[in-house]
Amino acid sequence: MSVTAVVLIKARTDQINELAQVLSNIHGVTDVYSVAGRYDLVAIVQAQRNEDLAQIISVDMHKAAGIVDSETLIAFRTFRNDDVHAGFALGQND
Amino acid sequence: MSVTAVVLIKARTDQINELAQVLSNIHGVTDVYSVAGRYDLVAIVQAQRNEDLAQIISVDMHKAAGIVDSETLIAFRTFRNDDVHAGFALGQND
Amino acid sequence: MSVTAVVLIKARTDQINELAQVLSNIHGVTDVYSVAGRYDLVAIVQAQRNEDLAQIISVDMHKAAGIVDSETLIAFRTFRNDDVHAGFALGQND
Amino acid sequence: MSVTAVVLIKARTDQINELAQVLSNIHGVTDVYSVAGRYDLVAIVQAQRNEDLAQIISVDMHKAAGIVDSETLIAFRTFRNDDVHAGFALGQND
Amino acid sequence: MSVTAVVLIKARTDQINELAQVLSNIHGVTDVYSVAGRYDLVAIVQAQRNEDLAQIISVDMHKAAGIVDSETLIAFRTFRNDDVHAGFALGQND
Amino acid sequence: MSVTAVVLIKARTDQINELAQVLSNIHGVTDVYSVAGRYDLVAIVQAQRNEDLAQIISVDMHKAAGIVDSETLIAFRTFRNDDVHAGFALGQND
Amino acid sequence: MSVTAVVLIKARTDQINELAQVLSNIHGVTDVYSVAGRYDLVAIVQAQRNEDLAQIISVDMHKAAGIVDSETLIAFRTFRNDDVHAGFALGQND
Amino acid sequence: MSVTAVVLIKARTDQINELAQVLSNIHGVTDVYSVAGRYDLVAIVQAQRNEDLAQIISVDMHKAAGIVDSETLIAFRTFRNDDVHAGFALGQND
Amino acid sequence: MSVTAVVLIKARTDQINELAQVLSNIHGVTDVYSVAGRYDLVAIVQAQRNEDLAQIISVDMHKAAGIVDSETLIAFRTFRNDDVHAGFALGQND
Amino acid sequence: MSVTAVVLIKARTDQINELAQVLSNIHGVTDVYSVAGRYDLVAIVQAQRNEDLAQIISVDMHKAAGIVDSETLIAFRTFRNDDVHAGFALGQND
Repeated sequence: MSVTAVVLIKARTDQINELAQVLSNIHGVTDVYSVAGRYDLVAIVQAQRNEDLAQIISVDMHKAAGIVDSETLIAFRTFRNDDVHAGFALGQND
Repeated sequence: MSVTAVVLIKARTDQINELAQVLSNIHGVTDVYSVAGRYDLVAIVQAQRNEDLAQIISVDMHKAAGIVDSETLIAFRTFRNDDVHAGFALGQND
Repeated sequence: MSVTAVVLIKARTDQINELAQVLSNIHGVTDVYSVAGRYDLVAIVQAQRNEDLAQIISVDMHKAAGIVDSETLIAFRTFRNDDVHAGFALGQND
Repeated sequence: MSVTAVVLIKARTDQINELAQVLSNIHGVTDVYSVAGRYDLVAIVQAQRNEDLAQIISVDMHKAAGIVDSETLIAFRTFRNDDVHAGFALGQND
Repeated sequence: MSVTAVVLIKARTDQINELAQVLSNIHGVTDVYSVAGRYDLVAIVQAQRNEDLAQIISVDMHKAAGIVDSETLIAFRTFRNDDVHAGFALGQND
Repeated sequence: MSVTAVVLIKARTDQINELAQVLSNIHGVTDVYSVAGRYDLVAIVQAQRNEDLAQIISVDMHKAAGIVDSETLIAFRTFRNDDVHAGFALGQND
Repeated sequence: MSVTAVVLIKARTDQINELAQVLSNIHGVTDVYSVAGRYDLVAIVQAQRNEDLAQIISVDMHKAAGIVDSETLIAFRTFRNDDVHAGFALGQND
Repeated sequence: MSVTAVVLIKARTDQINELAQVLSNIHGVTDVYSVAGRYDLVAIVQAQRNEDLAQIISVDMHKAAGIVDSETLIAFRTFRNDDVHAGFALGQND
Repeated sequence: MSVTAVVLIKARTDQINELAQVLSNIHGVTDVYSVAGRYDLVAIVQAQRNEDLAQIISVDMHKAAGIVDSETLIAFRTFRNDDVHAGFALGQND
Repeated sequence: MSVTAVVLIKARTDQINELAQVLSNIHGVTDVYSVAGRYDLVAIVQAQRNEDLAQIISVDMHKAAGIVDSETLIAFRTFRNDDVHAGFALGQND
């Protein structure tokens, strides 16, 4: 995969957990965080091209019930902590 | 590790890549995305307790030069896409 | 209890006192202030884990009628004034 | 004591813990929370009259280094969870 | 009377004069200004205690038709121009 | 006097009381409230014409130290509670 | 005429030209500009007293269909470019 | 002249009248209003082409001391109240 | 063509691609970008006069379904990169 | 080229034309519009990959003097008006 986006989501309060569960099963969505503060959910999305991100975010994700508003931050580049990710092969639980 | 935070960062424009590199090497920071839009960087941070997040974000990360403003979203819960993460042991490249 | 949150709430004006009363009886909610200014109510919530805060705030509290919008500030840490709290055993009235 | 205020504080990032410690020792300040999100600290203040709140917040608290901005929400009324506060005499740990 | 509040009100445009008239007759409301700019009405309210302000503002005033939004600024203290108010006994017209 | 304005003022925190005292002695300023919330002071100003308000607010008041920002709401009309103001001649205390 | 106001108007997009036409025929409204940017229309209004501006803006203008929101800026004073207005001929006073 | 702009200006408070006077003498500026509310001055500017507006606003007007911030609203079209402007005499076209 | 505008558009999420397609076929609209971030679409519009821009943007474009809000930035002037545009005759693909 | 971005720029007022000229000569920048309204300049940027956009925008463009703030909208997709662009080979002037 070659492009990544961070999607900041405001959701209907009574559907946050269900929505997060649904979103996390969509192809291209790798992680969804339910968070406290200015937003309700943060989703990490990966795809081949920017245009594919649009398909996943505007079409696939918005079919799920409960999204009130969202703002997409397309990543220029990803910087990973190698110490952390070296351990992924061994099975990391969080 | 038991708590996660998403940190939205505004940075000095001429230091974004250097800052992202430095942040991604801090213990507890797992990923840093340089992004287009309302923020400049998004960092994913993991720690044992909320109090440890404060130490990583307010002390360790803010020692790096270039952070203008930041807002921390502590995660209530993380929802992972099992299809994606099952593949991590095999070596995922992005 | 191990984690604390401050919840800033905007409420329907005609239901503020009733809502405050209901919220203050929810398990995990310790104090509710009806306030003047940018928000209508401020609730202090305590739980075992961040995930439990989500249950109390997004599910239990939002079952009460009258919440228009809310924003949760999860505490990294609590600093108590020992002089004040030493007196709690003797019965403090406010 | 007869009036209560919730003070929302933005602070200089490198001084949050020290500031919280100093504020929590000021007469009239009962609790200070360092928080994630739109604000950095939330302080609960109690006094005899509104005018005394001004003295504590605008004079005593602002002598401490590190406050960038603050907004005071004066409480109309406090609603306590009796189940929680009944237990205070017995020693509550958080 | 011992506490004062300034209430900033946004109102439905077609009801501003009628609303101002109604509000100015409520016990505890001393003056109402219809104004140009960010707000539509400014009301000065006086009461015995902060809790009484809540009753007047959230209950009595909000029974009047036409308030869209309001924000209450509780006064810490009032500073009067003695030259002006000395003349009040003689009958001031504005 | 024929025109009235409500001036919402943000002030330097360490000078609020001194500033309020100075402002309340300016010719044309009738009352100054130090308040909690989005603003620090609210001043009521009266003059003959709109142009005179500009002189009082932009020139006379801004000579005082401590005003950071201000916004003037010129009154279209004033609605007084006759019950309250009938009592002014007898000596009202707040 | 002795007082002037600049009214910034947000309008329903499909009615901007019709609304501008209607507003420009109201007694007291001298010019209406349909504009690009944060607002849709800017109207210049002149009247005898501030109270008359309220009548024109809140009552007469708001009877027209299509105003979504408006904010009135009452002029303290008008400064005309004499070179321009010298060409206007017989002498207009405001 | 064929294009018109409304320029909303925030100015340094102690220079508003002087600034308004200077701006109103610039070629292309027809009227300047010192106003109460969210802005300090409103200038009406006329020129041949949009590009000429840029010269007047960004270069000529900004040479004057005291402008803190400004936002230009270019007019799509001007609607004049013919009753008012009939009194202007020989016929001005914009 | 002599005047240009950049139109920033918020759209209904489920209609972004269809809306972009429709807008890009309107006479006067040269390019439409579906974008990530604070807005959903950016349209470049060219016309003879400012008044014609109003017709294209407020009438022709708003007939398309899905525009929630829009803000027009009229160009003072266009600066083209000659290296890029020299190549247009040869067929540039993006 | 495969990715496009729209960059919204706030600039120092006295340098807008010079800045626009400099930016329009940077490799990857195709068009720069000086505009009226909430922003001062809008730049269209094209590159091979998102990461290359970061280099052009954060490094190359920010070396130019006069940028105060900027926000990048990465395009998911570009929709061109074929009628317009068919004419490009023949030499279009604006």
